[in-house]
Amino acid sequence: MNALISPSRRLRRTPFSDGVEAAGVKAYTVYNRMLLPTVFRSVEEDYHHLKSAVQVWDVSVERQVELRGPDTARLMQMLTPRDLRGMMPGQCYYVPIVDETGGMLNDPVAVKLAEDRFWISIADTDLLLWVKGVAQGHRLDVLIDEPDVSPLAVQGPKSDELMARVFGDSVKDLRFFRFGWFEFQGRSHVIARSGYSKQGGFEIYVEGHDAGMPIWNALMEAGKDLDVYAGCPNLIERIEGGLLSYGNDMNMENTPHECGLGRFCNTETAIGCVGRDALLRVARDGPVRQIRAIEIHGDRVPGCDRLWPLMNGDAHVGHVSSAAWSPDYETNVAIGMVRMTHWEPGTELDVVTRDGVQAATVKEVFWT
Amino acid sequence: MNALISPSRRLRRTPFSDGVEAAGVKAYTVYNRMLLPTVFRSVEEDYHHLKSAVQVWDVSVERQVELRGPDTARLMQMLTPRDLRGMMPGQCYYVPIVDETGGMLNDPVAVKLAEDRFWISIADTDLLLWVKGVAQGHRLDVLIDEPDVSPLAVQGPKSDELMARVFGDSVKDLRFFRFGWFEFQGRSHVIARSGYSKQGGFEIYVEGHDAGMPIWNALMEAGKDLDVYAGCPNLIERIEGGLLSYGNDMNMENTPHECGLGRFCNTETAIGCVGRDALLRVARDGPVRQIRAIEIHGDRVPGCDRLWPLMNGDAHVGHVSSAAWSPDYETNVAIGMVRMTHWEPGTELDVVTRDGVQAATVKEVFWT
Repeated sequence: MNALISPSRRLRRTPFSDGVEAAGVKAYTVYNRMLLPTVFRSVEEDYHHLKSAVQVWDVSVERQVELRGPDTARLMQMLTPRDLRGMMPGQCYYVPIVDETGGMLNDPVAVKLAEDRFWISIADTDLLLWVKGVAQGHRLDVLIDEPDVSPLAVQGPKSDELMARVFGDSVKDLRFFRFGWFEFQGRSHVIARSGYSKQGGFEIYVEGHDAGMPIWNALMEAGKDLDVYAGCPNLIERIEGGLLSYGNDMNMENTPHECGLGRFCNTETAIGCVGRDALLRVARDGPVRQIRAIEIHGDRVPGCDRLWPLMNGDAHVGHVSSAAWSPDYETNVAIGMVRMTHWEPGTELDVVTRDGVQAATVKEVFWT
Repeated sequence: MNALISPSRRLRRTPFSDGVEAAGVKAYTVYNRMLLPTVFRSVEEDYHHLKSAVQVWDVSVERQVELRGPDTARLMQMLTPRDLRGMMPGQCYYVPIVDETGGMLNDPVAVKLAEDRFWISIADTDLLLWVKGVAQGHRLDVLIDEPDVSPLAVQGPKSDELMARVFGDSVKDLRFFRFGWFEFQGRSHVIARSGYSKQGGFEIYVEGHDAGMPIWNALMEAGKDLDVYAGCPNLIERIEGGLLSYGNDMNMENTPHECGLGRFCNTETAIGCVGRDALLRVARDGPVRQIRAIEIHGDRVPGCDRLWPLMNGDAHVGHVSSAAWSPDYETNVAIGMVRMTHWEPGTELDVVTRDGVQAATVKEVFWT
């Protein structure tokens, strides 16, 4: 596929789009009806740079679903099998969201701003509509909307240094998945130590469209000697790191347990979760298929734009959903879903790509 | 913007993607996390061809939300202020969907298959999640899912002739927004007289992914002497015809009345609609801003990838959301939202495009 993307208002621009365009973005995807850059110099050049320097990512597509009001805590627990009773303001939790059948509707990060106020920083589905629908049906007293908040990620080994220059040294004290409030030009923004890479970094929850480009420009200016550049979630790096992508690696068909997210579920104690009853058995017995790291041998694989069957002889035992050539590991790294009968590390399978059949091996862990 | 679109499984292919690619698709948009072609030969060439011949459109992105079971009728009426009591199986209704504040969540076509079974053929939001959430909260006895159904549109003045060759002469007897069941290779598909153009035509609700390419190929083969070609919703033609695009011309911020859809609302009698109370006043008094046809004078406008302010001197009185140069009318045609104080036909305004200020006139009607 070598097609252009057609501009329209429906594919929303972000507060940082002017900066993204000035940096020479070459390709986009669409995520939550918003433009998400995918390539600046090249996927491989972006990859090496992410691992060695520092990048500023426009991840405005991680829209927020804000919940506030008296029934907020009750509604939050209805959404997820993760037990939220121990969560404190200042914490971020990765929370699988499930429907009444236990199928995953989204895999967002919940940001607890106060006892009665959350942001849910979403993956690519209209979680807002599910939350509003459930609240309407249960007549809960909660305000639910999408605020004018757009995350800007700073990722890479030099992230701490760059962030300290712009937001002060205390930003370095943030622990993983904790956030604080930091000033920029007289306005306060939530900053968390988090992000969709394994290279370390932060996400700035930029409040107010007009605050976007000043922060973008300040980071670019302050990081010149750190080789800062515009970047974006990198396909190769996120597969190496085993970072799942909702819509690619899992969707409504899958339980959190199939996605290897059982450690984020406390199904017994998550009283009130609408999917609790449906998940109790799989939480106890385990799933019959699960996400695995898959190494694909041989030539560089083509772009994975559809599921590739994983075969054991004539038996269809799973599929690959994301794949890329890894320059650092000199092999094809991939994410797949494999049936229990064939998910043991070392199992040899065949994968049917668009271009033909290649040998593959189920791995014990991802490439980190 | 001249960027590429990055392939991934998340941006779903359709049953007709092989045909679309073989026809030389040049650009896509993304709609319901699925690929929607936007250009084949050029937007203008596609436009002239649509108005003179016949096109086959992959509109699989109009995903179906299927409702079936005992509480189906009650749930359908909860979703919309249009009174559905008179709707018969075999009919299609355009149904604004509203939340509890009267904001539009989607503007789909409802297809009544049976008293207890509907398809809702959706615009670009996850209406499935709203419907599931409402049903869960109200404990309704309805099954809700997305079936393996992908619409294929046949549009243009020669549509009747082409469709009759493939599905038999009786397809010509379909009245507007009525559907019937028609056979193809031993399988039965819903066909409606409908579609997102003003040139006339049909939509085939193709059931089963594997049924897609045989129907595509049969239409292409049967229509050779009719100059059939692959096409897609055409930006110029749909603006001329005043066909609104959810996400471009309206969104959750807007009531149906602001969108000129008051004729599809029966707010007094739509008992059970969750947005009824919120809409009663606007249904009686009318909105304070409304969709209008806007003519933009002067040079050809750039692509409208964001809202363009409509100004009366220094006063911001609305915005343009879709615009294109019309070869047939030799002017720029546009869709905008204008405040009541300035929406009278003939009102002269200024529009601020990306490239500068151009004179504009509020029109009485669209270009049909």
